[in-house]
Amino acid sequence: MNSMNAAVVHSFTDDLVVEELPIPAPGPFEALVKVQFSGVCHTDLHAAHGDWPVKPTLPFVPGHEGVGTVVEIGDQVTRLAVGDTVGNAWLWSACGECEYCQTGWETLCPDQVNGGYSVNGSFGTHMLVDSRYAPIIPEHVDLSAVGPILCAGVTVYKGLKVTDTQPGQWVLISGIGGLGHIAVQYAVAMGRRVVAIDVDDSKLELAEQHGAEVTVNAATVDNPAAEILERTGGGVHGALVTAVNAHAFPQAVASLRRGGTVSLVGLPPEEFPLDIFTTVLFGLTIRGSIVGTRKDMAEALDFYVRGLIHPTYTVRTLPEINDIFTEMGKGDINGRVVLDLN
Amino acid sequence: MNSMNAAVVHSFTDDLVVEELPIPAPGPFEALVKVQFSGVCHTDLHAAHGDWPVKPTLPFVPGHEGVGTVVEIGDQVTRLAVGDTVGNAWLWSACGECEYCQTGWETLCPDQVNGGYSVNGSFGTHMLVDSRYAPIIPEHVDLSAVGPILCAGVTVYKGLKVTDTQPGQWVLISGIGGLGHIAVQYAVAMGRRVVAIDVDDSKLELAEQHGAEVTVNAATVDNPAAEILERTGGGVHGALVTAVNAHAFPQAVASLRRGGTVSLVGLPPEEFPLDIFTTVLFGLTIRGSIVGTRKDMAEALDFYVRGLIHPTYTVRTLPEINDIFTEMGKGDINGRVVLDLN
Amino acid sequence: MNSMNAAVVHSFTDDLVVEELPIPAPGPFEALVKVQFSGVCHTDLHAAHGDWPVKPTLPFVPGHEGVGTVVEIGDQVTRLAVGDTVGNAWLWSACGECEYCQTGWETLCPDQVNGGYSVNGSFGTHMLVDSRYAPIIPEHVDLSAVGPILCAGVTVYKGLKVTDTQPGQWVLISGIGGLGHIAVQYAVAMGRRVVAIDVDDSKLELAEQHGAEVTVNAATVDNPAAEILERTGGGVHGALVTAVNAHAFPQAVASLRRGGTVSLVGLPPEEFPLDIFTTVLFGLTIRGSIVGTRKDMAEALDFYVRGLIHPTYTVRTLPEINDIFTEMGKGDINGRVVLDLN
Amino acid sequence: MNSMNAAVVHSFTDDLVVEELPIPAPGPFEALVKVQFSGVCHTDLHAAHGDWPVKPTLPFVPGHEGVGTVVEIGDQVTRLAVGDTVGNAWLWSACGECEYCQTGWETLCPDQVNGGYSVNGSFGTHMLVDSRYAPIIPEHVDLSAVGPILCAGVTVYKGLKVTDTQPGQWVLISGIGGLGHIAVQYAVAMGRRVVAIDVDDSKLELAEQHGAEVTVNAATVDNPAAEILERTGGGVHGALVTAVNAHAFPQAVASLRRGGTVSLVGLPPEEFPLDIFTTVLFGLTIRGSIVGTRKDMAEALDFYVRGLIHPTYTVRTLPEINDIFTEMGKGDINGRVVLDLN
Repeated sequence: MNSMNAAVVHSFTDDLVVEELPIPAPGPFEALVKVQFSGVCHTDLHAAHGDWPVKPTLPFVPGHEGVGTVVEIGDQVTRLAVGDTVGNAWLWSACGECEYCQTGWETLCPDQVNGGYSVNGSFGTHMLVDSRYAPIIPEHVDLSAVGPILCAGVTVYKGLKVTDTQPGQWVLISGIGGLGHIAVQYAVAMGRRVVAIDVDDSKLELAEQHGAEVTVNAATVDNPAAEILERTGGGVHGALVTAVNAHAFPQAVASLRRGGTVSLVGLPPEEFPLDIFTTVLFGLTIRGSIVGTRKDMAEALDFYVRGLIHPTYTVRTLPEINDIFTEMGKGDINGRVVLDLN
Repeated sequence: MNSMNAAVVHSFTDDLVVEELPIPAPGPFEALVKVQFSGVCHTDLHAAHGDWPVKPTLPFVPGHEGVGTVVEIGDQVTRLAVGDTVGNAWLWSACGECEYCQTGWETLCPDQVNGGYSVNGSFGTHMLVDSRYAPIIPEHVDLSAVGPILCAGVTVYKGLKVTDTQPGQWVLISGIGGLGHIAVQYAVAMGRRVVAIDVDDSKLELAEQHGAEVTVNAATVDNPAAEILERTGGGVHGALVTAVNAHAFPQAVASLRRGGTVSLVGLPPEEFPLDIFTTVLFGLTIRGSIVGTRKDMAEALDFYVRGLIHPTYTVRTLPEINDIFTEMGKGDINGRVVLDLN
Repeated sequence: MNSMNAAVVHSFTDDLVVEELPIPAPGPFEALVKVQFSGVCHTDLHAAHGDWPVKPTLPFVPGHEGVGTVVEIGDQVTRLAVGDTVGNAWLWSACGECEYCQTGWETLCPDQVNGGYSVNGSFGTHMLVDSRYAPIIPEHVDLSAVGPILCAGVTVYKGLKVTDTQPGQWVLISGIGGLGHIAVQYAVAMGRRVVAIDVDDSKLELAEQHGAEVTVNAATVDNPAAEILERTGGGVHGALVTAVNAHAFPQAVASLRRGGTVSLVGLPPEEFPLDIFTTVLFGLTIRGSIVGTRKDMAEALDFYVRGLIHPTYTVRTLPEINDIFTEMGKGDINGRVVLDLN
Repeated sequence: MNSMNAAVVHSFTDDLVVEELPIPAPGPFEALVKVQFSGVCHTDLHAAHGDWPVKPTLPFVPGHEGVGTVVEIGDQVTRLAVGDTVGNAWLWSACGECEYCQTGWETLCPDQVNGGYSVNGSFGTHMLVDSRYAPIIPEHVDLSAVGPILCAGVTVYKGLKVTDTQPGQWVLISGIGGLGHIAVQYAVAMGRRVVAIDVDDSKLELAEQHGAEVTVNAATVDNPAAEILERTGGGVHGALVTAVNAHAFPQAVASLRRGGTVSLVGLPPEEFPLDIFTTVLFGLTIRGSIVGTRKDMAEALDFYVRGLIHPTYTVRTLPEINDIFTEMGKGDINGRVVLDLN
């Protein structure tokens, strides 16, 4: 009764261990959640491998796409009640008082706490959330599918917003994997015209089914950027790079219409060369974007609840977590993975 | 009477030749201008050396910072009259009908004509201008000083605008040379708080005289970006990179406050490495900006006319043009150079 | 061969006269167009009645929603060729050089020429257009239906843009007549969620068919604004007022979410009372919007060409023009009216 | 020791009573402040007279421009410490969780608490503040002068921001009283060119001393708007209406350049007629603005600390409060009034 199961990272080089942990008690503003499902994100691999500049403190439980039911609340909690359905998120909490929190940019808060990274996450039967930041899941939603919205969904939704494009304009979605296939759907729901680029024809077919008007296979087309410039009458107004390979970034920049914006949401631990001459002469903008605020999350969920977003995902179980990580590392998974923790 | 003197580029490897040319007759929308002064810009060197991807057609007369008096107009000209004082500019004309011209972004027009590059420029006693695009010089202005506004001034003014900063926020001016020392003045006039960075103390002193509150010598400070982060309470909100050396770009990016914007206005024919991780995690924006529109020009001139901008410049004569180019190439010139063509 | 038929306004109080006129010769930048269809707009009534502060010069031919084929061009024309399909528009031409024309706001040009008002319009078998401003009609378009896009379409499209709303947010369309029923369709295509308000249930049904999620009959609901606040969870983010009755404006303001924007596109020659207390305390914005630029027009046409906009219209003939005006004045016409001039 | 002095409103029709009250104990997130100075604002009169739609609960202590020293903190307070110098403000606290609080618009929070209105204010020797919202006063500031920044200052600063003007553009400040004379100074510090309008020449002289380039006496000039249009070459780009008389609003609208914005910050309990025809045809924007967020406050204080803002004010004492209110009601006070509570 007082213990839970969770997948724990004890070392950045070994497998995760699925083990029993004591169920944590919620702090004053926290809530304890009985997790039902949790999405698995590429960021969880980076966390488990400790390959980003700032590493998580060992041991820890990854996962920032969990959803479940509130079973206990701290004594200062007013926003949630026992029985509510909530999620955790990468932006687990923020300070609420810095210049970023005060101006609608809590995603840039230097004191933010990240779910499954600087605080235990959703790869377990129970998790804590900060009641002030936990996404509230609307009623009548299929909980097995909502996890991918909590990270992949909000990330591409916000990334599309900051391309500064308008309905009717072209956006390029670069990479139609776990993030990109959701991005196509948000872009269409946002009234944009979509170009999809990938190296896999089956993914481009998926993009077409979700409404992409132009698809380009970067592996078989001689000059993908030139192809895009031609088929969009001068280039895309915005681009969202979800792909992490070295070609994707300069390809997206070269596909832009003059005055266009590339938005980057992937986190490869690398540098990319930026051609200054073209950037200046064509008035281009390159912009990074990281997940989304609580408001972005509520909006991203609203699109989902209205039936406009259908993530492709596979349901797996907690004991498979190491296999899942291996497959994700190899790029062998289509769409997203969701753990069933019921 | 029918001939003029001009400095002509006959080859990308030889010196310019100051020679007599026939005075050209203005086309229907053009005006003939008796040039009094012309600024010399680093772009003129690139033109004369043919070191950009698209080269000028030989032979040609460089120069896009000229000012003088209209002496003859074409038969369709309505905006100018004989006796008016006008300038030429890098944006010598644009098509007026493309999506960029229609939306206030004529600087991105694919069919633009560039002064002293794709049409003869102001390094001569006479020049043609397009009456629809030539900057009109307000009355009672010292014509020897206005040339630098026509290119350096409008370029940094527009570059500052697209940093998306607000009065009271910090902007970094990187490089206090011919462009940068004018940028400091525009930034101050625009209500921004200025950080200046250079490797030359005398230039930093000049920046201070023009109102920079923080100056950093990148050659003598261990970690210039760290210094800037500390002295601005978290980093600059925007940065304008006028320097063209390889360190300046990543240094400016590293000096940004989260959510900040770097604006690039120099045109080094190179690539710079962009750190994706920081760009994404800190929500940074990198943006190219090229000269300015007619409206930007009128605004930049207005700041100048109101006595808020004082370019540092040296007056020289046309026969010295090859010496001037040599000195500019070595970085031996402080501020701007203006040719006296009277 | 040298004469055309047109409906001419000879007096602001008498009927229009359908009569023979000489076919005009195009000026240097003009094109002569054989008109096939022309929409009839409420503005044409204001023109014919001379009830706006600045009146047209008599006699004149109204009409600014014409489409047809170029049959002759002036000697300076480069953008059009004989055989092209083009339209005329309210923004028949602008000066190209003022601060508004230079910044993408040609709709505010003080020297603009207005089709069917300060220059003869499209209520005839032939019309002149300015080749630099005439909307180019894409191929494979049903010409009988495109007229309403040229004024009603672009007007509501631009009006929706300046509500500063985002996809997923609520917009109120006030009045589901000739403008409003098209506005519902643009709003949906732009990803907005639509509330429609009118006093006629059949019009609200039409709005629902076009995708409005919430409809309110202002004649039968006690407090329409309160109803809207409740059903949208706090009010609409933006509102477009196409209705011209005295209640519509304060009703739209009262339906706004805090921070929301009302966009006005109708031109009733009246004042409306604005409640300052609410405007200030709730941070509201009230904004006027007039037709759209050439770029807005191209965008509005693009939505239409992609099959997203289906105006309701009735085809009539030129001799019926006085009857049509009478019916429009009484509000007896559903949707738009299009004259067949073939 | 346990009692304080304060001016208390017991009835909306009687004078305030200066009396002894028990010193309140701070709640978990609150701090107790020994007040040194408090500005007096016109809003305090509205509060004391109960003449706004939602009235304060009697009895209460007005005042929302207080500054003083923290002498005790609640057990959840982390942002403040005993000895800190802080202020109270109209935006005494907000919910922190609604869509407005999440997006940098806490001034629109429906659950906000207002200082000296829905919670006791600064017209006393002690006051409570919410530690999460209280403005932190920078060091080395003259505390007798800072009060006016906390309401008048931040209000006009934010109001100027939402005019959407740029440095170098014209803004009209309508009314050079307690708000307006500070607005002139912020506008100049923000790089705007200022037109001042009032009916009192001495106030216009003050505006000139603070940098206004154009001044217009609305009482002596025939057509003030025409005068402004002419002297600014076409009208102001933005206007801030601080005046509350019936002429000021339409006058400001009529003084706008096409595409311009009027920002309203006063709260007269009235309606003003808005001319729809001009609003639409000239693309005008009318926008309400209420005080400012914590971030706006920090920025407004920063301008003040840098020596750019010098409010005119008179120092008075608490027992004079009823006289002060009488004088303010008659418009007999120049600048602002500050109570010395030491």
